[in-house]
Amino acid sequence: MTYTYQQLRQFILNVCNSMGCSDEHANITADVLMAAELRNISSHGVSRLKDYVNLWQSKRINTKPEIKIIHETLSTALIDGDAALGMIAGESAMQLAIQKAQNVGTGWVAVRNSNHFSIAGYYAMMALKYDMIGICMTNANPLVAPTFSIDRLLGTNPIAVAIPAGKYPPFVADFATTPIARGKLDIMHKKGMQAPEGYVQDKTGKWSDDPNILTQGGAIVPLGGDYLHGSHKGYCLGAIVDIFSAIFSGANFGPFVPPSVAFLPVLENTEGIGTGHFLGAMRIDAFQKADEFTQQMDKWIETFKNAKAIEGQAKVIIPGEPEREWEQIRMRDGIPVLDKVVMDLHQIAIDLKIDKL
Amino acid sequence: MTYTYQQLRQFILNVCNSMGCSDEHANITADVLMAAELRNISSHGVSRLKDYVNLWQSKRINTKPEIKIIHETLSTALIDGDAALGMIAGESAMQLAIQKAQNVGTGWVAVRNSNHFSIAGYYAMMALKYDMIGICMTNANPLVAPTFSIDRLLGTNPIAVAIPAGKYPPFVADFATTPIARGKLDIMHKKGMQAPEGYVQDKTGKWSDDPNILTQGGAIVPLGGDYLHGSHKGYCLGAIVDIFSAIFSGANFGPFVPPSVAFLPVLENTEGIGTGHFLGAMRIDAFQKADEFTQQMDKWIETFKNAKAIEGQAKVIIPGEPEREWEQIRMRDGIPVLDKVVMDLHQIAIDLKIDKL
Repeated sequence: MTYTYQQLRQFILNVCNSMGCSDEHANITADVLMAAELRNISSHGVSRLKDYVNLWQSKRINTKPEIKIIHETLSTALIDGDAALGMIAGESAMQLAIQKAQNVGTGWVAVRNSNHFSIAGYYAMMALKYDMIGICMTNANPLVAPTFSIDRLLGTNPIAVAIPAGKYPPFVADFATTPIARGKLDIMHKKGMQAPEGYVQDKTGKWSDDPNILTQGGAIVPLGGDYLHGSHKGYCLGAIVDIFSAIFSGANFGPFVPPSVAFLPVLENTEGIGTGHFLGAMRIDAFQKADEFTQQMDKWIETFKNAKAIEGQAKVIIPGEPEREWEQIRMRDGIPVLDKVVMDLHQIAIDLKIDKL
Repeated sequence: MTYTYQQLRQFILNVCNSMGCSDEHANITADVLMAAELRNISSHGVSRLKDYVNLWQSKRINTKPEIKIIHETLSTALIDGDAALGMIAGESAMQLAIQKAQNVGTGWVAVRNSNHFSIAGYYAMMALKYDMIGICMTNANPLVAPTFSIDRLLGTNPIAVAIPAGKYPPFVADFATTPIARGKLDIMHKKGMQAPEGYVQDKTGKWSDDPNILTQGGAIVPLGGDYLHGSHKGYCLGAIVDIFSAIFSGANFGPFVPPSVAFLPVLENTEGIGTGHFLGAMRIDAFQKADEFTQQMDKWIETFKNAKAIEGQAKVIIPGEPEREWEQIRMRDGIPVLDKVVMDLHQIAIDLKIDKL
């Protein structure tokens, strides 16, 4: 089924209000999830509502959070998300990082006691309108085995970096530190496709072509694939995201990150509080004159856009370009939602006694 | 040939003094290059002296630099390296980042008008003794083609992150944002080996097994290898390093980064001044109580050290472990230097009229 932006957004607002969110928090949640839908990252859009509602019902998400600053310096803060929806904790953390950057050039905020926050890129992009670079990372459910291991110790731990330009749209990178995101494996499984070598390993550590192998003790490998091709570098990246998100903040690290679905129980031995994020904002004029920065950034973008393509291949992509094209297409043509997700949303409407989508 | 730590270090000091470096600058240069030798990253050790001397002779390296702060805020600075040896500009930038972190929690320094600075990890590790996380990145000669392209627009652009622990040694990641460093391709070529698929492409963008293909218009690919395996993520990482190092600072970006060897001329159309770096320091107690941070970091390290290995594979590596083992071995057994490099060093001794190694 295909829905308009307004239809889906209103449905999210209704769900949030029904869970007891304030209007402000409902709007933030809708903004983030709709950004994911528009940018064609539907694995992080309305399909997540079912999990959020279930986690709220099992009291693992608090829709009336009091987000607190635990400790701060002029350029940093540690905040406790009070088990909020990740979108609320993430948005609040980025606002604080931006405020600190306005005062002293940069701002850095570690978050504990949070939950799944949809796309990291949303929070990084919040910094753009202040002429700042935004940075955002989060740890996530353990699905990734470090190089040489069969244990799943890391999440797909994404990193997002948004950088303002001048006449061109901003550079927006937002990527998992693995060759493939979990959502894409699910789609392959549903379509009966095989996973290419270099995505997942089975429970003994051998390559598997089964995109459903995660349900049988398998693991996603780090970016790079295997040691010969630098998977230890992908493992380093995932580890850095985990340490910044959880050790700075006192959230759970690596294998202890709580599942973002209610049907999996929270581990009995936790090593911290909830899920962790790490966010930063850097004023471009804290280093360089702002107009020189944006002019050079325009030249950077032109240089890369004009690179010679391999015969038969697409042109070099400036990070963020494809997502912006999707935003236009989906605002115009509507947003497709998988039948299975539509059924989930109908069930939510029945459970919460709200209008059906 | 194998030399002791002291023999090699003294030779570096003699070369630096002969080029007109102050004792302080000679010692910093020797410390960085010897850290590379001890850590088994000999591609970034004494083998670079030949290039440094040649660049000094052609007046592209200034051994009497006045490093200037061009602009600063409480948490940031832009410095101009005055064409110094990269080691001098890098060390100076990290000292400034540490000082700012002491005052306001974090410090971030962009550097322009610098040169090749050996290993990024050295500068990141400088932060450790202050109970800070150190971060360092640099752009470099363009050898890497972005995903879908045949043009070499990025360097191997390394990222280093050093994180203090408690009873365990620190976590020290230091890696190129490509599957393979250029130095390893050179070694493959010298040994008559073929490059595995996923390292380099020829001038038309097809996989090449020739480790010498860079001399024939080929390129290294980004970490991930190809688009199917996430090379666009490796391209994003390399791009972020380039933008932070050059657009923040006013150094040359991407394809304009000057060659770090004298036999290649500087481009006529430059887009900035020299090579760029970006360094950061974050006090761990700017977020979390320092002892809680180091205790949790110890648990993190234990958890990863105890991961189940794939049968027949090494155990999971904590980033920095192999390099620390090399340091012990090489302090004890001496440091091997390739015959070709020994010949270069002898020629330097003759040219500069200093004692032979």
